[in-house]
Amino acid sequence: MPVRRTVFFISDRTGITAEMLGHSLITQFEGIDFKRVTLPFVDTAEKAALVAERIRRTAEQDGTRPLVFSTIVKEEIRRIIHIDATAHIVDFFEAFIAPLENELGQESSHTVGRSHSIENFHEYNHRIEAVNYSLAHDDGVKPTDLAEADIVLVGVSRSGKTPTCLYLALQYGIKTANYPLTPEDFGQPGLPKPLQPFKHKLFGLTISPERLAQIRAERKPDSRYASLDNCRFEVLEAEALYRNAGIPHLNTTNKSIEELASTILHKANLTRRIY
Amino acid sequence: MPVRRTVFFISDRTGITAEMLGHSLITQFEGIDFKRVTLPFVDTAEKAALVAERIRRTAEQDGTRPLVFSTIVKEEIRRIIHIDATAHIVDFFEAFIAPLENELGQESSHTVGRSHSIENFHEYNHRIEAVNYSLAHDDGVKPTDLAEADIVLVGVSRSGKTPTCLYLALQYGIKTANYPLTPEDFGQPGLPKPLQPFKHKLFGLTISPERLAQIRAERKPDSRYASLDNCRFEVLEAEALYRNAGIPHLNTTNKSIEELASTILHKANLTRRIY
Repeated sequence: MPVRRTVFFISDRTGITAEMLGHSLITQFEGIDFKRVTLPFVDTAEKAALVAERIRRTAEQDGTRPLVFSTIVKEEIRRIIHIDATAHIVDFFEAFIAPLENELGQESSHTVGRSHSIENFHEYNHRIEAVNYSLAHDDGVKPTDLAEADIVLVGVSRSGKTPTCLYLALQYGIKTANYPLTPEDFGQPGLPKPLQPFKHKLFGLTISPERLAQIRAERKPDSRYASLDNCRFEVLEAEALYRNAGIPHLNTTNKSIEELASTILHKANLTRRIY
Repeated sequence: MPVRRTVFFISDRTGITAEMLGHSLITQFEGIDFKRVTLPFVDTAEKAALVAERIRRTAEQDGTRPLVFSTIVKEEIRRIIHIDATAHIVDFFEAFIAPLENELGQESSHTVGRSHSIENFHEYNHRIEAVNYSLAHDDGVKPTDLAEADIVLVGVSRSGKTPTCLYLALQYGIKTANYPLTPEDFGQPGLPKPLQPFKHKLFGLTISPERLAQIRAERKPDSRYASLDNCRFEVLEAEALYRNAGIPHLNTTNKSIEELASTILHKANLTRRIY
């Protein structure tokens, strides 16, 4: 039986940074059954005391020290969570903020929730605009105004275009359109007509025919659409099209949405509009 | 003129954790003009040497020490980036992994890219399913199958439903539907009919009438839809509906999408399906 450890992600705001940092550290340890608990909006001494109590109770019940990943900014609240005898505390601010204050020659503002707040309306509008744009241009709905896109993802049905588009819009503020390649686009010389004016901002996705057949079969079992033969044909044609037109492309088969999005950003030399 | 500092986010994979870590720290320092550069996929000694060279050149050009936020896992690559005389290095793994190894009584796997990889197909499918579900149920397209939703966001047009839905699906794997309240839904007793069977999983969004009018005016200037009077009416009616039906609700006016999503998750007692 694997060892059991409770992991607390604690924050004075959303908990997103604490979750991501903690997650990236604990995934380095195999064979441990981590039970994750996120406690966001711990922004008063009273709430912090309740959290400390909960950690103590968990330690007793588990018989092991919980891991606590904290991104709490305010010193007086952080101190209440620091029950180092009972839990292993990873205090993100404590570790890095003092050396940074030293380096930058100024005190940090100790302001709660700067990184995921709406403070910057300009950034916020970029984001909403990009999301709306990507939704309106999912599956090439209006190829006439691809002109506005920062990038256009091209690929056969179910090759991963839509979630990658949404991620690029939501996380990076990039206006991403997508254009589905259908059998009508193949067997003709050159790019599909609606794409021709935008060659410089096309990015192709491809996928292994086996994986594609599996994904399509979940949607339309026993269809020609999902058959391995047809998937092979479409993938080969799409890849030939990318090569002939000199379009950069990426195989999505073993990549997460984060990996796809960050690779595309990097390869297409785009700059994120929001952080 | 504000001081200029170049900030490098360096990673052997996507760079997402390094960006979030660094961003949440540098937003604590005001009046500094940070120039952000993300260098993902630094996974060989050769690439690391090029990065170190680029940091050195930047230090010379800027006349200040760059800040470097690194989440590189492998010791031998990290060492190449550690040009501490030239830059202020914030090394996430170095800071936290050794104490954690000690606490957990085992060595970390030092495996690159665990946290944003596709390793876990089960999680991946949750995510894609949730995204597809949320897209198919944006603006109440098929209220008949709200049964499948983990949560249904309710609110007037442009109150923030769609981006929040997409975030919940993409980041947390939560199947989120949304139902737009229109003037037809008001002035009647009780909940709109399609929502009645799902009262336990409704979550209301509200917004200040002034902000709503501003957002709507960008879309349809000088319309009745965007007029402050009409926005006031719709918002008041929506809020009355939430109160009368006992639906939990949230004001989106000053909240980022991250704050909305994590607050809803927390208040609705949902558990994220993916990390």
